[in-house]
Amino acid sequence: MKRRKFLTQAAIAGATTSTIAACSQTPQTTATDSLPTVEWRMATSWPQSLDTIYGGAETVCNRIKEITGGRFTITPFAAGEIVGGLEVLDAVQTGAVEAGHTASYYYIGKNPALAFGTTVPFGLTAQQQNAWLYHGGGLEAMQKIYTDFNIINFPAGNTGAQMGGWFKQEIQTVSDLEGLKMRIPGLGGKVMEALGVNVQVLPGGEIFLALDRGAIDAAEFVGPYDDEKLGLQNAANFYYYPGWWEPGATLETQINLDAWNSLPTEYQEAFKTAAKEANINMLAQYDALNQAALTKLVEEDGVQLTPYSQEIMQAAQEAAFAIYEEDASNDATFKEIYDNWQQFREQVTRWHRINELSFTNFVVNSDG
Amino acid sequence: MKRRKFLTQAAIAGATTSTIAACSQTPQTTATDSLPTVEWRMATSWPQSLDTIYGGAETVCNRIKEITGGRFTITPFAAGEIVGGLEVLDAVQTGAVEAGHTASYYYIGKNPALAFGTTVPFGLTAQQQNAWLYHGGGLEAMQKIYTDFNIINFPAGNTGAQMGGWFKQEIQTVSDLEGLKMRIPGLGGKVMEALGVNVQVLPGGEIFLALDRGAIDAAEFVGPYDDEKLGLQNAANFYYYPGWWEPGATLETQINLDAWNSLPTEYQEAFKTAAKEANINMLAQYDALNQAALTKLVEEDGVQLTPYSQEIMQAAQEAAFAIYEEDASNDATFKEIYDNWQQFREQVTRWHRINELSFTNFVVNSDG
Repeated sequence: MKRRKFLTQAAIAGATTSTIAACSQTPQTTATDSLPTVEWRMATSWPQSLDTIYGGAETVCNRIKEITGGRFTITPFAAGEIVGGLEVLDAVQTGAVEAGHTASYYYIGKNPALAFGTTVPFGLTAQQQNAWLYHGGGLEAMQKIYTDFNIINFPAGNTGAQMGGWFKQEIQTVSDLEGLKMRIPGLGGKVMEALGVNVQVLPGGEIFLALDRGAIDAAEFVGPYDDEKLGLQNAANFYYYPGWWEPGATLETQINLDAWNSLPTEYQEAFKTAAKEANINMLAQYDALNQAALTKLVEEDGVQLTPYSQEIMQAAQEAAFAIYEEDASNDATFKEIYDNWQQFREQVTRWHRINELSFTNFVVNSDG
Repeated sequence: MKRRKFLTQAAIAGATTSTIAACSQTPQTTATDSLPTVEWRMATSWPQSLDTIYGGAETVCNRIKEITGGRFTITPFAAGEIVGGLEVLDAVQTGAVEAGHTASYYYIGKNPALAFGTTVPFGLTAQQQNAWLYHGGGLEAMQKIYTDFNIINFPAGNTGAQMGGWFKQEIQTVSDLEGLKMRIPGLGGKVMEALGVNVQVLPGGEIFLALDRGAIDAAEFVGPYDDEKLGLQNAANFYYYPGWWEPGATLETQINLDAWNSLPTEYQEAFKTAAKEANINMLAQYDALNQAALTKLVEEDGVQLTPYSQEIMQAAQEAAFAIYEEDASNDATFKEIYDNWQQFREQVTRWHRINELSFTNFVVNSDG
């Protein structure tokens, strides 16, 4: 752990500060204390080319720097620069870096309930996820888990509902999925496996070649804006929707608890607020960018935009909840969070059916 | 204008500051400058009883105070404490208060395009509104208008899609609306007027009595959580949805530009970020609270939850866009913003039809 970069509470309390201020023009008082200079590193799970997701880390870092007048600076690093994209939690836990920007569901091997901190198949939309995290007990539940890893986390981005992946051929029934080789990580992969898919795990950078050469038959990544950069439209023609395994994926910052506790309250508050800005900003950015990319994919690249059939959606939803029930029966923490989450999901879905959904369905249908 | 509370750039530049810091334990450096003490007042358009909306102002003020270690404090005031709820812009413009928390559409008499800063009938959902404001040119357009009033504004809250109001009797066709006395302010009122409604303007606190005594036949307010507090369920039995005139109402902070320009950059950045926190937080809070209130209204108070008919929705949408077209033909600023807004609306609606909507419709229908 890089102790020299941490500033302990004792050090703050022990710092002797005095400030003399004079005002030439307007009556004013100045604060008599002074804030420390703190420099941190933030490991992320993203390449810089994913500018919207990596941008979430940049938003947090830039905003904290601006709010603190450059006193508290955090430098973000792309996946692989300090640690691999899936090793962020470990690096934050040991203090190799003070902070990270990642997704909790990369670490379900450490605790399966961490899936809920990001998104689960047939889970909450971005807006519902925020409601659950901030006002439904979700964030408290995640933070409780993370104390086992000497970490505190805050949501810091959301992709919105993603797309359902690229397929070289049409799939209409569950039997069409049988034996299909598909790149799909995490719980989405578990559900696909339950439906007969031969699930492949590949880093984002290797998807195009594998799909293009036919080593895999299908692959999912994020949504139009990100997928288009990988060139997946040149390797498969059918673009399915919706991305039922990631209906509103929350990205998050993770902070080593020793580092966190060493911060003055002002910096902690700046960090928390900057994370919320990253959360609302990333979703707004994706919503502003995705349709232009989708239009280009369809109109210029001739991509076939295709909905999942009801049969596949229903089978996938059943398989997903069977997995959650099994995890709940094996793990008390998972069960506690799952029960709370399910109740919240049922409530917020009922509310959105009345207000958001009835409105949006009218608008969509009346505009053709 | 309370000049003594403002700190001019010249004063900041002229302040002589020095800081001596020593560290007893951990190597550290301390910043050598110091930040001024600033005290502001924030007039709001809300009674404190609307704790979610008024809470948006509190979020901004509390968070700024915490981030700045109490150096920059802003005290929020309920409607009527300093100025009336609809006079916030004027008070901020003259500098009677440095800041406000209000809704831009209260001021369409000053500039009709300010409607887009909050919400318009058949406009954007909360999520779409954020995308337009932050990444579609919306906020820049609003801020450009506000410079005419010596004001800068930032979004600082969203109610989500509201409800469609309380009616003493069922309304199924446009002719059922003819001559109906309804309390509905703003553009929603203009649309209802075009459909034959006798539009009434009443403060929130007077709605219950007017509806209960039959002085009006119908009234709209916000949504289940807020409406229930007014007791409207005891004055009318039919609760309509969706609130097509407010599909995602943005609340905002307004700041006097002289006051704003007098702030150190750190405080400006803290303010902007705190406003974004208020924006994401208020929506999350409403989404977490509304269904419980709606369930209570239906199950305990026997309220009839009733959708607007397609006929009324279609007639209302046509009337709404006819109003926008007329405003656009009369006002170049309105036309410029309306054209940009319409294009954005069409794009984001297409995207949400594919991802969010197809997913949510499946979930709602499969869960019954």
